[in-house]
Amino acid sequence: MTEPFRFQSVAIVGIGLIGASLALALRDCGFDGAIAVADRNADALQEAEALGLGTTYHGDAAAAVADADIVILSVPVGAMAAVGTAIGPALKAGAIVTDTGSVKGAVIDAMAATLPASARFVAGHPIAGSENSGPGAGFPSLFNHRWCIITPTPETDPEATEIVSGMWQAFGANIEMMEVTRHDLVLALTSHLPHLIAYNIVRTASDMEEVTEAEVIKFSAGGFRDFTRLAASDPTMWRDVFLHNREAVLEALGRFSEDLAMLQRAIRWGDGEQLFDTFTRTRAIRRSIVGAGQDTAAPNFGRPQEPRGGE
Amino acid sequence: MTEPFRFQSVAIVGIGLIGASLALALRDCGFDGAIAVADRNADALQEAEALGLGTTYHGDAAAAVADADIVILSVPVGAMAAVGTAIGPALKAGAIVTDTGSVKGAVIDAMAATLPASARFVAGHPIAGSENSGPGAGFPSLFNHRWCIITPTPETDPEATEIVSGMWQAFGANIEMMEVTRHDLVLALTSHLPHLIAYNIVRTASDMEEVTEAEVIKFSAGGFRDFTRLAASDPTMWRDVFLHNREAVLEALGRFSEDLAMLQRAIRWGDGEQLFDTFTRTRAIRRSIVGAGQDTAAPNFGRPQEPRGGE
Repeated sequence: MTEPFRFQSVAIVGIGLIGASLALALRDCGFDGAIAVADRNADALQEAEALGLGTTYHGDAAAAVADADIVILSVPVGAMAAVGTAIGPALKAGAIVTDTGSVKGAVIDAMAATLPASARFVAGHPIAGSENSGPGAGFPSLFNHRWCIITPTPETDPEATEIVSGMWQAFGANIEMMEVTRHDLVLALTSHLPHLIAYNIVRTASDMEEVTEAEVIKFSAGGFRDFTRLAASDPTMWRDVFLHNREAVLEALGRFSEDLAMLQRAIRWGDGEQLFDTFTRTRAIRRSIVGAGQDTAAPNFGRPQEPRGGE
Repeated sequence: MTEPFRFQSVAIVGIGLIGASLALALRDCGFDGAIAVADRNADALQEAEALGLGTTYHGDAAAAVADADIVILSVPVGAMAAVGTAIGPALKAGAIVTDTGSVKGAVIDAMAATLPASARFVAGHPIAGSENSGPGAGFPSLFNHRWCIITPTPETDPEATEIVSGMWQAFGANIEMMEVTRHDLVLALTSHLPHLIAYNIVRTASDMEEVTEAEVIKFSAGGFRDFTRLAASDPTMWRDVFLHNREAVLEALGRFSEDLAMLQRAIRWGDGEQLFDTFTRTRAIRRSIVGAGQDTAAPNFGRPQEPRGGE
């Protein structure tokens, strides 16, 4: 075994931002075993090979996992069941399978339905990413100082949970153990709803025919640009998140819409006190997030103030 | 006159983030005339004096403007009428008055109702700011490479418009001339609606009793933290924006809610195609904003990945 990893051979299925960052983080931490890379997208696979992310490259996930002690599934949540079906028969007995999906209930169900009993599945979710996609977007420190949530069930093998946790800790992540449905509710609020809102406001702005897209872009520094980052995230990944965490997302969204209707009414009726009260309460949360090291204290996220190009 | 400025004496009424940045930018550009600073908040005034932002400091705006060639009003939009009433009788004949408010129609009406005919009012709006408030948050490069919108009316003195424009250009800003109601509509979409949505989602998250605030903070890197920056903006300023740009904000908000209802329905009925189409369209806008130099191309706004403190 290569310390600190308790496995000799890895397969990464899905070599996008997360899969590529995993491959780079493994090497960065001194892992010198085999890394079999699989992706059904030939372009992504070729890019991964050009970047030297793995030791072997496979269009067929089953071929990639045949020798793996641990298989990491970093594909969109909606593709998990098909991948499980494909790799199930090819897995070594006792192989660990883990994933990085943003929804955990649906993935656990998909794995239970498709993996053989001899496979040891551990559901995981690193709270890390960026608006960029594809193997070229990966970087080895992506998981450093970030949380990784593991959602073991009574069926999960404790040793496998330890081995997966140890891998994330080697990458600099901190582990949070969480119950499956709680994960899906907490993430619906802290991640899925924010992405949905961001996608929606960008759509609203681009559809508003009285205001040109050029104006929206030109004056986006007034606030709009903050939303466009999340709204540039991978469409397939996010489609799948919403389809597979439907109940929790609808619950969070229902509350958001109720609250928004109240602010709308306050604006219509000129209720300045209610607006002021709401806007005052929300300041404290920002301070807590910065205080907890989950965001920078620098104004404007510390973004560089670049000269306007192309004007 | 101190080149490039065509005035010798300035009064800044309201010494928050914007007022303080103006004072610092004036000095940075070599302005060596008087800067009279006024604020009705004694703490802000004292802080401004400690920071050496002006030459004289006044709790009474009328006293501050008495010798000024140009008066810059950087107070919340809702305070403009009261300030106009207070300073009107004290203004020098021919004095230029300009402002930095995020709403232009309401401010123009307030000035028309309160300033004497001899004053020359020019309505302006720098598209720049940060989530921090108060005189200590100001910095001299705040307006550099940003847009400043001027909304002249048929009553606006052309020479005064030139002098005000020249000042913003000296600060590195680029001038956009815009019709008043168009400004208020474009900004409702690109700035006011984004702030309202950000405030609202942060409120929803802090109110959701099944999820603790500690969890929201801990896992905010999944997307939520992006919204907390705007939701930490000055509550008084934003209350006033919504109360004074009501019609345009309600129009933009109505469209946002309609679009969100459609996404909600797509999630409920499992319409992945509609979700995917929406999420694909929104990517292009981000690229355009980065291409136009209005945001950084660095992933995650280039924010530093700080270690988690206080856990």
